[in-house]
Amino acid sequence: MEQKGILIVISGFSGAGKGTLVKELLRRHEEYALSVSMTTREPRPGEREGIEYFFTDREHFEETIAADGLVEYARYCGNYYGTPRAYVEEQLGAGRNVILEIEIQGALKIKEKFPESLLLFVTPPSVEELKRRLVGRGTESEEVISKRLARAAEESEGVEAYDYIVVNDRLEECAEEVHRLVDAARRAPVRRSRFIQEIREELNRFAKGAQV
Amino acid sequence: MEQKGILIVISGFSGAGKGTLVKELLRRHEEYALSVSMTTREPRPGEREGIEYFFTDREHFEETIAADGLVEYARYCGNYYGTPRAYVEEQLGAGRNVILEIEIQGALKIKEKFPESLLLFVTPPSVEELKRRLVGRGTESEEVISKRLARAAEESEGVEAYDYIVVNDRLEECAEEVHRLVDAARRAPVRRSRFIQEIREELNRFAKGAQV
Repeated sequence: MEQKGILIVISGFSGAGKGTLVKELLRRHEEYALSVSMTTREPRPGEREGIEYFFTDREHFEETIAADGLVEYARYCGNYYGTPRAYVEEQLGAGRNVILEIEIQGALKIKEKFPESLLLFVTPPSVEELKRRLVGRGTESEEVISKRLARAAEESEGVEAYDYIVVNDRLEECAEEVHRLVDAARRAPVRRSRFIQEIREELNRFAKGAQV
Repeated sequence: MEQKGILIVISGFSGAGKGTLVKELLRRHEEYALSVSMTTREPRPGEREGIEYFFTDREHFEETIAADGLVEYARYCGNYYGTPRAYVEEQLGAGRNVILEIEIQGALKIKEKFPESLLLFVTPPSVEELKRRLVGRGTESEEVISKRLARAAEESEGVEAYDYIVVNDRLEECAEEVHRLVDAARRAPVRRSRFIQEIREELNRFAKGAQV
């Protein structure tokens, strides 16, 4: 068994309950760590430095990019968002599974750079429930709902790139399901490359010895 | 959740204990069914019709090929070996997971034809243990051992095509691990295509409605 932690990307439809799912997983299992993103946008009321985000300015963010200090980053509406590399590497090295809660474009970048990362996509239990959550309580403007719909449609196009689709029906069960999927993912060849390499080398050495 | 069973291919190094693992899985969980291969080779002492193989002649085998009655087939040492389609489809349709215990070439053919099939590769717990099992009790000829080694080296080259590598250390634990991996595999997008399709259609329909 390779001992290093797994880099886990969690994405999913708006309203699928990703945030509470991640919190539940962290509460239940100490081998997970949540990566906190860095951003140049202003903190919103109630947001705390180092909890929701690391808040910084543009100059420092661009220095961090230049120093290869981010695992991935993106720009939305004039602001930068990114994943600081140091924390991710430190936690993975300590054997913890690091969770990034990011959207689909970021997820695809992560998979490209780290093929051994695990991509999970969270959905509500049914199409009806998804619609209900997208529409909300009927108090939101048509514009807000239209935007959410467009975003959900876009997200649904990328689902095949994910390793697993997780249905978030009951929170506790879903957290345990994610934990089992991470365990299963450890058995995929992409995450057992050292073991495979060892077997190949040993078989080659052995075969040469047998021929002598 | 899509209800149909999963087609499971089990391969692995000689001496990895595939046969006993499959038996243990069948004993513990009734939702698995073992596919019995058809062959034109002569039964060996103790082999029973319909248990180890369905024994048949070349003419009937070739008729079955022509009638598309096999899921996959191959020829070794002048004999045909193949997987009868009817049993596989009947069991999958009844929601059972059908196990094929076949070698790597057959496994790759299955994956190509059925992308939603699940490929498991079974190994002994360590390289040392693998060597021990390949060498046997020291009573076998160098030729036999050399052949096994060459075969193991060949098999090790194909491991990346498998979904999971299963380490067979303790039989009962390993059977439960396989069961959990099959459950995890149900969450992969390739096996949730109907759910994804439904969500996409519904989001499109919904988006059109919202624009009217």
